[in-house]
Amino acid sequence: MAGLCVRSALVTGANRGIGLGIVKQLLQMPNPPEWVFAACRDPKGERAQELQHLASKHANLVIIPLEVTDPASIQAAAGRVREHLKDSGLNLLINNAAILLNRTLEIETVENMAQVYATNTIGPLLVSQAFLPLLKKAAQGSSSSELSCSKAAIINMSSSAGSIEEIFVWDYGQVISYRCSKAALNMLTKCQSLGYRQHGILCATLHPGWVQTDMGNFSSTKPPLTVDVSVQGMLNVLCSLSEKDTGTFLDWEGKVVPW
Amino acid sequence: MAGLCVRSALVTGANRGIGLGIVKQLLQMPNPPEWVFAACRDPKGERAQELQHLASKHANLVIIPLEVTDPASIQAAAGRVREHLKDSGLNLLINNAAILLNRTLEIETVENMAQVYATNTIGPLLVSQAFLPLLKKAAQGSSSSELSCSKAAIINMSSSAGSIEEIFVWDYGQVISYRCSKAALNMLTKCQSLGYRQHGILCATLHPGWVQTDMGNFSSTKPPLTVDVSVQGMLNVLCSLSEKDTGTFLDWEGKVVPW
Repeated sequence: MAGLCVRSALVTGANRGIGLGIVKQLLQMPNPPEWVFAACRDPKGERAQELQHLASKHANLVIIPLEVTDPASIQAAAGRVREHLKDSGLNLLINNAAILLNRTLEIETVENMAQVYATNTIGPLLVSQAFLPLLKKAAQGSSSSELSCSKAAIINMSSSAGSIEEIFVWDYGQVISYRCSKAALNMLTKCQSLGYRQHGILCATLHPGWVQTDMGNFSSTKPPLTVDVSVQGMLNVLCSLSEKDTGTFLDWEGKVVPW
Repeated sequence: MAGLCVRSALVTGANRGIGLGIVKQLLQMPNPPEWVFAACRDPKGERAQELQHLASKHANLVIIPLEVTDPASIQAAAGRVREHLKDSGLNLLINNAAILLNRTLEIETVENMAQVYATNTIGPLLVSQAFLPLLKKAAQGSSSSELSCSKAAIINMSSSAGSIEEIFVWDYGQVISYRCSKAALNMLTKCQSLGYRQHGILCATLHPGWVQTDMGNFSSTKPPLTVDVSVQGMLNVLCSLSEKDTGTFLDWEGKVVPW
């Protein structure tokens, strides 16, 4: 990760699973960010205890309350982050917060579909909109003319389960609402890459692999990847991203995933 | 269209644009369906006058009230269609109803995103669920073992604007909510093709081209295609679909569209 040199990063859904893993590894970097903003719905809750413990040991880790389906909560979070950053921008926004409800085609409901889309697709859109001024500021303050995660980037956490070509792990779970939301998130990422390139912001979407997290345990089969291996891989990928990679869909090993 | 031999077809959003065009051409076929069900939100409204006029001339055309975002309305529509069909099934379901709201990344809202997804993605899911028993019945009653539109099929009307690879007409309109909803609809189609193959139902998604309809007029540029040319092309494509085409994304000329 020698190449990843971000002054500030924000991770949503940071209290557990892959989000927590990213926060941990950012803090352990040889040149850690000056600010790591760990956003989660309920910072005071039981599920955020590990994150709270981490924050007690790292002065550069700031926990931010954030409910990605609530525009007011998103605005408040952006305000808090702005206060911490003072005159500098945000280099890296990782839209990781997501939910998964395992339903088949036959029993998928309007409520599920809407709820999962609100969190997994509309959430990243709104969060990116709210942090756009800070991302622009980071891009403007960068000495590099090339797009990179060290300059300014939006990384959306997707899944090969959202690859229409691959339909990853179909035999383990149809997860219709999840797949539709992630295909839409991939589309959003492509749109963001086209719309935000002029502002110097790189946008990409990642498949973390099938990881041993609460979300990964949607079937009776144990996922093959540990959080550490997945996150290590993804941070290496983030390091390597440049101009040509904006608008792409890559897995934790840097391989292109078909849409 | 010699090959398209459907006893019954249902088209949603059938009161204008491409939906109305499909209904007209189905009625004009040398061997027209015994039943053409034209579903629309407000059959009594001003925007359904042409459809009403058509129904007054064609005994095999039945107008069905249907609001695709309302589960109760969908169930009622399925009940009415079932009454007409008596003991036979529905061969062809065309999920055509859709909305488009032209917003850019910067001003796209949670309300728009949710509304467009509800109509363009969740709608086709729910309508397909409700008509599944009738589609199964048509498949079971068919003498052919091969999948085809003449046997039983769900055709979802998508757009190359929903192709993450193509991002068709980006320079004419970002239409974020629409693009995300159509990418998700393509995913849904792929899932339906996997889930419903065992029931003998072919599932595919179509790009009608950029067509001269109310929806097509989202920019100041006149769309290149007439409704007639687009619909004629799509009905030819429907004719040609077989086993190998389930789960694919084709344009009005039969060319594969990348996801």
